[in-house]
Amino acid sequence: MKSDIDALMAKRNLDAIIIVADEIYNPPLDYMMNDGHITTGLMIKRHGAQPVLYVSSMETEEAARSGYEVRIYNDPGLIALVQEHKDISRGHAAWWGRILAACGLEGGRIGLYGAGDFSFILGRVALLKELCPQYEFVGETVLTGTLFDEAFATKGPDEIERLRSVAQRTDLVMQQTWDWLTSHHAEGGLLVGEDGHTLTIGKVKRFVRKALLDVDLEDTAMIFAQGRDAGFPHSRGEDNDALKLGQAIVFDLFPRELGGGYFHDMTRTWSLGYATPEVQAAYDEVMTAFDIAIEMIKPGMPANQPQLAVLDYFESRGHQTLRTHPGTQQGYVHSLGHGIGLNIHEAPGMSHLSTATLAGGNAITVEPGLYYPEKGFGVRIEDSCIIESDGQVTPLTTFRKDLVVPIESR
Amino acid sequence: MKSDIDALMAKRNLDAIIIVADEIYNPPLDYMMNDGHITTGLMIKRHGAQPVLYVSSMETEEAARSGYEVRIYNDPGLIALVQEHKDISRGHAAWWGRILAACGLEGGRIGLYGAGDFSFILGRVALLKELCPQYEFVGETVLTGTLFDEAFATKGPDEIERLRSVAQRTDLVMQQTWDWLTSHHAEGGLLVGEDGHTLTIGKVKRFVRKALLDVDLEDTAMIFAQGRDAGFPHSRGEDNDALKLGQAIVFDLFPRELGGGYFHDMTRTWSLGYATPEVQAAYDEVMTAFDIAIEMIKPGMPANQPQLAVLDYFESRGHQTLRTHPGTQQGYVHSLGHGIGLNIHEAPGMSHLSTATLAGGNAITVEPGLYYPEKGFGVRIEDSCIIESDGQVTPLTTFRKDLVVPIESR
Repeated sequence: MKSDIDALMAKRNLDAIIIVADEIYNPPLDYMMNDGHITTGLMIKRHGAQPVLYVSSMETEEAARSGYEVRIYNDPGLIALVQEHKDISRGHAAWWGRILAACGLEGGRIGLYGAGDFSFILGRVALLKELCPQYEFVGETVLTGTLFDEAFATKGPDEIERLRSVAQRTDLVMQQTWDWLTSHHAEGGLLVGEDGHTLTIGKVKRFVRKALLDVDLEDTAMIFAQGRDAGFPHSRGEDNDALKLGQAIVFDLFPRELGGGYFHDMTRTWSLGYATPEVQAAYDEVMTAFDIAIEMIKPGMPANQPQLAVLDYFESRGHQTLRTHPGTQQGYVHSLGHGIGLNIHEAPGMSHLSTATLAGGNAITVEPGLYYPEKGFGVRIEDSCIIESDGQVTPLTTFRKDLVVPIESR
Repeated sequence: MKSDIDALMAKRNLDAIIIVADEIYNPPLDYMMNDGHITTGLMIKRHGAQPVLYVSSMETEEAARSGYEVRIYNDPGLIALVQEHKDISRGHAAWWGRILAACGLEGGRIGLYGAGDFSFILGRVALLKELCPQYEFVGETVLTGTLFDEAFATKGPDEIERLRSVAQRTDLVMQQTWDWLTSHHAEGGLLVGEDGHTLTIGKVKRFVRKALLDVDLEDTAMIFAQGRDAGFPHSRGEDNDALKLGQAIVFDLFPRELGGGYFHDMTRTWSLGYATPEVQAAYDEVMTAFDIAIEMIKPGMPANQPQLAVLDYFESRGHQTLRTHPGTQQGYVHSLGHGIGLNIHEAPGMSHLSTATLAGGNAITVEPGLYYPEKGFGVRIEDSCIIESDGQVTPLTTFRKDLVVPIESR
């Protein structure tokens, strides 16, 4: 939680953290900015102190909504240093040193966070090492275990409220999509609308994107993949493909608050008109795996336990898994789930190799699946949920789990 | 251009480059991936050789569309190294070393590119230094001067085609927005629609976002800021504010191809119904500055020259500028423009401190403005254009530059 930041800094022996804004969406920055917003600049937070923002003079208004002190980054001091060093990059690096000193830091260990261009940050740190040797600038080596990963993993009440709102709105768009599909009729194994046109995946995606905007959400790359494409977990689906009856469609929708913010993540597998026995059988097994996982999840449990149980189940049904066949592309080919929040994938990871522990306040996905691209199908069912401190698992996703979408013939 | 990559690597003495995919949109990766797509993994390119992709087994299909060789990242070798090191992060770092060796690199200087979590890449490089000391992993220190910045700056014919298409579609949405505004009528100084509701900035933005989706573009954070808000170049505008007659509205629209890709960038300043003399006068000066810049831009010219001419002009008219008053928040408070492509801001930068040189194939914005938040207005006019090798400057933006949007009273 946000209130843990100072403790998490102390644990890492950090005198300060810098969050660098580099024009792209930046979860640590968004997490800390309250209602403020900046596209470039720095947030500097000393241990035990409030953050200070250094922003372009163009962004002082948007920055001030954060409630933090706002100072101007591109001030005459920066210009003077660029001229003194006869180099823009060296001038900026030297300016970071001046800024840290102005924040009362004469030296120390500084954690660098944020998101952006890798080459830029590596180059900047190399210059800082040369020009400001009184500071040690560090990243973190633990995958999904950085200071912010740790803070993100436990959601506060306001975050859960936002996650719940995004979930409700995503459920609504799922329902609208279902209703829109069923307003079509079957003709020659395809879906045809009132206007006589065949429905394509591209049209469905456009419908969904606009429906999301109507509830102030934005798509971040939904999957709507049919038949063989559904057999590859991350195949997005082909826009020009017509929707076909009796094919498994994996519809993985993971929108976020418009402009960046909290995600929801859910998947339904739909088969239009009817399902083949093969797909129905796989669906039933995935549903069983889903229930196995949901029923056992508890705070305090090693995060890999539910995945191990699901692996046991799928393997007992004769499927290959990432445990029996690392890198396999058929059977159960991914982990059970992951945390969600300001990142679509965050801690705790729920692979069988995960060393995390589940805790009250985690927001996680549960998403078992079976994939047989050579047989022309894939199936995945995914809900997001909150692990409550009292041991309950509260679903965020509430949309029904029907495989078959009824379609009338004409 | 993409065909320059090997030469740009040689200039930097790089034996190979790695582009790291870290879930977020990644311009260098997109630039190199042709029609392929991955969310995690590595692209490794030795000097003089074709790239090789290491991707999750879930993403082999989407990766293969690139036309490059695809290998599986999460294969048994990775699992073995994670177990050997008893640590996921160290296992991954050691695996990068194995992958580089498998690509025929026994050692050497490796440029790291891509976009993502800063703490992750700094931590990963620290581990690589320890576990794979035969390689030197480097970033670049020159702001907007990295290998990819240099490559991006000169657009090839296929890129110009895409930029032109995005521009045409953006112009279309501008026209639709104009038409939609003029379909409202004035009532008590506000805009009222057929449905009797007052038009707000939030409604305009939703209209624009949906209109963009209809032409396969996505908004990336448009500015539609009115009155005092328009006086701050990066204020986005308040969703709940009603549109008011006779206020300057800065409408800065910079969408990109849906899902990530080439940007367009244009700004119009509109005043609904009528303009105040003060805004009209500022508008006329900004238009003059725009024409001064457009008329002098030529390939081979230092990129700061047009800005110097615009600074001379605005200062001669009595305005403060970033040259006379660094960090000022009134007058002309930003640079003249920037390159556009897969990034909204890329080389060449066109500030008065820029050391770049304009060249044929550059795609740039020209966007002078005047800002007086205390007087309750701001004005900016922005087109994007291509600098042709023969010396011509071809506009990408063609939408009319009218200040006053006619609104009928009822």
